[in-house]
Amino acid sequence: MKVAGKPMRTIWREPDGTVGIIDQTLLPHRIELRRIADLETMAEAIRSMQVRGAPLIGASAAFGVALALRHDPSEKGLEAACERLIATRPTAVNLRWALEEMRRAVANQPPERRAAIAFARAQEIADADVEVNRAIGRHGLPLIERAAARKPRGERVNVLTHCNAGWLATVDWGTALAPIYTAHEKGIPLHVWVDETRPRNQGASLTAWELLHEDVPHTVIADNAGGHLMQRGEVDLAIVGTDRTTATGDVANKIGTYLKALAARDTGVPFYVAAPSSSIDWTLADGIKEIPIEERAASEVTEIAGRLADGTLARVRVTPEGSPAANPAFDVTPARLVSGLITERGVAEASRAGLQALFPERR
Amino acid sequence: MKVAGKPMRTIWREPDGTVGIIDQTLLPHRIELRRIADLETMAEAIRSMQVRGAPLIGASAAFGVALALRHDPSEKGLEAACERLIATRPTAVNLRWALEEMRRAVANQPPERRAAIAFARAQEIADADVEVNRAIGRHGLPLIERAAARKPRGERVNVLTHCNAGWLATVDWGTALAPIYTAHEKGIPLHVWVDETRPRNQGASLTAWELLHEDVPHTVIADNAGGHLMQRGEVDLAIVGTDRTTATGDVANKIGTYLKALAARDTGVPFYVAAPSSSIDWTLADGIKEIPIEERAASEVTEIAGRLADGTLARVRVTPEGSPAANPAFDVTPARLVSGLITERGVAEASRAGLQALFPERR
Repeated sequence: MKVAGKPMRTIWREPDGTVGIIDQTLLPHRIELRRIADLETMAEAIRSMQVRGAPLIGASAAFGVALALRHDPSEKGLEAACERLIATRPTAVNLRWALEEMRRAVANQPPERRAAIAFARAQEIADADVEVNRAIGRHGLPLIERAAARKPRGERVNVLTHCNAGWLATVDWGTALAPIYTAHEKGIPLHVWVDETRPRNQGASLTAWELLHEDVPHTVIADNAGGHLMQRGEVDLAIVGTDRTTATGDVANKIGTYLKALAARDTGVPFYVAAPSSSIDWTLADGIKEIPIEERAASEVTEIAGRLADGTLARVRVTPEGSPAANPAFDVTPARLVSGLITERGVAEASRAGLQALFPERR
Repeated sequence: MKVAGKPMRTIWREPDGTVGIIDQTLLPHRIELRRIADLETMAEAIRSMQVRGAPLIGASAAFGVALALRHDPSEKGLEAACERLIATRPTAVNLRWALEEMRRAVANQPPERRAAIAFARAQEIADADVEVNRAIGRHGLPLIERAAARKPRGERVNVLTHCNAGWLATVDWGTALAPIYTAHEKGIPLHVWVDETRPRNQGASLTAWELLHEDVPHTVIADNAGGHLMQRGEVDLAIVGTDRTTATGDVANKIGTYLKALAARDTGVPFYVAAPSSSIDWTLADGIKEIPIEERAASEVTEIAGRLADGTLARVRVTPEGSPAANPAFDVTPARLVSGLITERGVAEASRAGLQALFPERR
């Protein structure tokens, strides 16, 4: 997607052999690109969330292994690199998967060829992510087209989204935003309601920034506002991402998703979840009972990061000293509230039967 | 209620004839009391939200009239004072009502007695508000007692609240928080989940501060978290306030209330609204169709106020320059989602019949 008119991905190989990234911790206030030349810098970029989002973390880790093998292509070097990278975000599923892929790719290869093979495989992992997201965009497009067909001529389709499931969370295109970008490219007039997504504000800082640079009309709202907008007919459909999807179609996504799904059901607004098959945990049947919910630092609730009038980045405290805070990072939306799961193979009903119809190999 | 151990109200007469208030714009970071000696300062205190909350605005305006009559007790002086005060928050119902009361109190009184009569009437208005809130506390108490009776012995009752409907919004006790303070005083172990209440953060800054000074255990959460907590059995009941209640029991309250009511219904959590009869608009039958929703400044969404590490109060911007924001201030919760309305005469079913049973004079 575009940054200031120039097409970019979130991660790329530079001609000098280093790996380029956008430092997402400074968005939306500053656009700073980094050239990463070694394992340690990549590990730190993942840990400090300069790169974030499950698919992007996977691709970053893959490139991290390749960078490590440039300096030490030995078996010991490979293992040390994987160990260092797995420690950065220990619960990210894609990270673990990407490291396995990298191990497999260089196994039994002579040391002098390992770095080149690793870079090639990392690039394949990145490209494959882009293809999955493009497919989600294609399959989600008719949902937006149908909403457009129901609107009076020329009136724009209003889509609500929560958190950031855009290209910044992946290598390119994004998951929930892929259908929106695809529809926008086709000239369908649309407008996106962007939930700010407290406490980390990924909607206000990342989704709004993405849409701004793609010239997609959008409006940032407090997370509290979505139900009211649905009640007043201001939302035609909602599309969100998922961090983990059960085999039965329950969805664990950023905290607050469940509330929007309830409002969508109450007001008759279709509620779709963009769910690449990599997000599906085929071993789970009951999201509320089985998906553990990460509890993050209270300081994300009590302090808010942003830009002061003079341009400095700073954190302000909003609660009184002495008041504790809790910070569950995800919630579970039961399948009964989900209108459909947009996967790379098509839109599935949010149920075991619906998912198995698209993924018969999982039957 | 208490500030640093000392009982206080939000507005009071000082021995020197001035009127004392707490500057609520500085909470929770600084506690500064102001002595207000004239009409203009009181009008500015209301306009700038040093005092806020419908009942407190009414009482403040009443004292504002009294202060004005100290300097100019003529009919012209009275009219000028009312005109100045009505312009501060033109839509506040209690403000209009309080000014009418003050006009009535001093009508046909000799100029030399008007200021004294006005101060006495202002004090009565303040005291009456306290009595209404005490009664809401008494009638709400059994709801918390019933929840306590259902808990394993000694386990605390978890109450969720949204925005600030505490003593800071009234003269004392508050509306939604009155049952909580009453239960706490009776020694019922309880814990309050405090929605931070974006965009203005009245939960994080005012409700948390109140509970902290009353030693009521509480935890601040992002507005997104309440549904998840209800799903996991962490909320026993919810109590919120109301800015306007229809004769049929629909409730317009701070934006986001509707989402919590939906989650409460979906998870079987009782959802109560503390509704003094002054909040009931007997002319309305359909809240969603008939209650106009105030749209406030976008800057409340794009910028957040708080305290920097060095103690300075500052605002940080969280959205990219160029991204618009929308800021509807209230939403409507339909009566079907409300378990009961806690009024000063008892708990009413949220319906025309339920309200008329308690207020037969409205039949």
